[in-house]
Amino acid sequence: MSDAATMAGMKRAFKDHRPIHFLMETSPDGRVATIRLNRPERKNPLTFESYAELRDLFRDLVYASDVRAVVLSGSGGNFCSGGDVFEIIEPLTKMAIPDLLAFTRMTGDLVKAMRRCPQPIVAAVDGICAGAGAILAMASDLRLATPDTRTAFLFTRVGLAGADMGACGILPRIIGQGRAAELLYTGRAMTAAEGQAWGFYNALHPAGDLEAKAVELARSLADGPWFAHGITKTMLNQEWAMGLDELIESEAQAQALCMATGDFRRAFEAFAAKRKPVFEGN
Amino acid sequence: MSDAATMAGMKRAFKDHRPIHFLMETSPDGRVATIRLNRPERKNPLTFESYAELRDLFRDLVYASDVRAVVLSGSGGNFCSGGDVFEIIEPLTKMAIPDLLAFTRMTGDLVKAMRRCPQPIVAAVDGICAGAGAILAMASDLRLATPDTRTAFLFTRVGLAGADMGACGILPRIIGQGRAAELLYTGRAMTAAEGQAWGFYNALHPAGDLEAKAVELARSLADGPWFAHGITKTMLNQEWAMGLDELIESEAQAQALCMATGDFRRAFEAFAAKRKPVFEGN
Amino acid sequence: MSDAATMAGMKRAFKDHRPIHFLMETSPDGRVATIRLNRPERKNPLTFESYAELRDLFRDLVYASDVRAVVLSGSGGNFCSGGDVFEIIEPLTKMAIPDLLAFTRMTGDLVKAMRRCPQPIVAAVDGICAGAGAILAMASDLRLATPDTRTAFLFTRVGLAGADMGACGILPRIIGQGRAAELLYTGRAMTAAEGQAWGFYNALHPAGDLEAKAVELARSLADGPWFAHGITKTMLNQEWAMGLDELIESEAQAQALCMATGDFRRAFEAFAAKRKPVFEGN
Repeated sequence: MSDAATMAGMKRAFKDHRPIHFLMETSPDGRVATIRLNRPERKNPLTFESYAELRDLFRDLVYASDVRAVVLSGSGGNFCSGGDVFEIIEPLTKMAIPDLLAFTRMTGDLVKAMRRCPQPIVAAVDGICAGAGAILAMASDLRLATPDTRTAFLFTRVGLAGADMGACGILPRIIGQGRAAELLYTGRAMTAAEGQAWGFYNALHPAGDLEAKAVELARSLADGPWFAHGITKTMLNQEWAMGLDELIESEAQAQALCMATGDFRRAFEAFAAKRKPVFEGN
Repeated sequence: MSDAATMAGMKRAFKDHRPIHFLMETSPDGRVATIRLNRPERKNPLTFESYAELRDLFRDLVYASDVRAVVLSGSGGNFCSGGDVFEIIEPLTKMAIPDLLAFTRMTGDLVKAMRRCPQPIVAAVDGICAGAGAILAMASDLRLATPDTRTAFLFTRVGLAGADMGACGILPRIIGQGRAAELLYTGRAMTAAEGQAWGFYNALHPAGDLEAKAVELARSLADGPWFAHGITKTMLNQEWAMGLDELIESEAQAQALCMATGDFRRAFEAFAAKRKPVFEGN
Repeated sequence: MSDAATMAGMKRAFKDHRPIHFLMETSPDGRVATIRLNRPERKNPLTFESYAELRDLFRDLVYASDVRAVVLSGSGGNFCSGGDVFEIIEPLTKMAIPDLLAFTRMTGDLVKAMRRCPQPIVAAVDGICAGAGAILAMASDLRLATPDTRTAFLFTRVGLAGADMGACGILPRIIGQGRAAELLYTGRAMTAAEGQAWGFYNALHPAGDLEAKAVELARSLADGPWFAHGITKTMLNQEWAMGLDELIESEAQAQALCMATGDFRRAFEAFAAKRKPVFEGN
């Protein structure tokens, strides 16, 4: 069997996905997928079913051979209001421990799937970004917001710990331990200005420009060396808790892999010829 | 023996503590304890005895059944000037290695005890916050200061390393590795404005408001779901150096515990009935 | 053999080093060494040979008995433009995997050597600071820049991952995971103002003052307790990925070592006598 045929068996086209609980659009060339939470009348809450479908979708992206960057967005001027109070919180208050653990593992699996797919995820965050919604933003690679976005890790407000879907471990890596402690203990909303000053949001844009800016950023990544971007994502994921020697050796190996790709040669040849490189992901 | 009796054997009331080397007040309901360093004529330095008493007090808080949040403060417009030069530094210069290690382990045990008790600690920092005083602020969960506070990790000024009571590991987690390196190598004071901009201080308040603001913050936490707050603290402590998969699994277990508490149900029922929840810590 | 003779066998004078690929000056007392990348007509790029020589030089600093702080700078208004496109990138595009790994391990070894030598390294960064140049700044202990400095981790622009010489692990420790992700995925230049606001640069100075300020900072460290500074550096290196209990115990041992030095006693005696301490590094 040829290499190409072998790879075709491992990989799958993604653009024909038809999600049930949210919208998905892909750019004409299939490279940029926009996933949009879409229950605007409730500010796009999550349900058991939509959690699971999101998890499966990000898991499938590992093997997608066409999509190279993802935009995660919401409908109707809000990002996501988190787990629905009557569709998620109420049933959870009546569950036995094994079922509770099955639920928290499923929501954690969504974060793992977002971090494990090689495509950079750009969150486009407007309006309410709360609870599990704040987690979806946190678990993305890059985050854009509007000046009115309010981001709240409000688990404490429903009697829970800030330790939800990785927040006590991941949020401090983005904004530092002291600020993360405040947000997780108090559940208060982080303003958009704080979010930018603290490094949670990479940039703020007016609501009317937000999604175009997110797609533009995703597009610039999708047109870049996407195999290498996937390596960048993997290494950002796993070097945080490594010692210096180990992380430097890990990068020596990872970058040697990238230097053996045609994309590295293509970039050099384009530079020498003073033209824009065209990457092929191999 | 009943569950309640068993727990009574494990837990202890805290409000009758009568510390020798500092002041302690508790709110009428016992939920908020304010610990005040109290040698204002010397800017509240620490001695061998007060180190040990602070360590023991925070260790006892692990089993305290009444206190739910702690304010740590100083007297006379200063927080703490650190280890007393003549009562601590001078004797240390004459000690043998085993005694030195016994001392550094004791001071380290104070930080461990502050991190291990389930109560969030709010430091109310005015004026001088230096040496071991800066460590006490660093080891707290949340930090409020005044615009005039000066915070110095000045160990280098007495010929020592910045590696004191965990500073080389904990301070970078709060303000980043580059800023921590500067403070620890040079011993220079961090201004209050820097402290806020860098995420060391959560907020600045005028000196006249500082303690009221700290008590207000502690009170809001004490009236919240304190079992869950204790879990938040534990997870903030121990996830920093975990891999992504491990920290997400840890949170799945920790949050499942919290979802099995009555406080989670109480919060939902209060939400559904549009009233404020009353938490019971179980 | 006397202790002094034994140590003389382990240590080496550094000031007689005559590097080939860059300039080196030492202060009259030998305590502060300034290493200057010096191919100003090409904005001080690195080559295979200069990488190796820098690695060897920082390795030798481990045993240098005279140098106590290092300034790392560039010639002609720029810091370093990174690996030379025709002298490094082009040959790499034609190498086999084992040779690529030998190269990435060599560049990684430079970062390891910079982190392992006990001397604090102060980067004085003006103009272009790109690719491996940005890594040299990142791997330093303290970083000063000018308002016009542009710092770009531009590996993605040549088709590579951001995982170069430790960047995916070290950069997030300085500026946080979200900002590091943006710089590493996009390769865009960080402005000097961003660099200061994000904690990458410790301070900005006008170009005419930059090197004097860097030397002044290095001098203040060189005149401090340099054995203790070396311990601070070691602990900053290795505590990031430790658990709380382990890092606090590590510091208890490390600081007990420093308390057993004469420098600790000298600092106390100077304080008691109201004079400036003179440190001897033992």
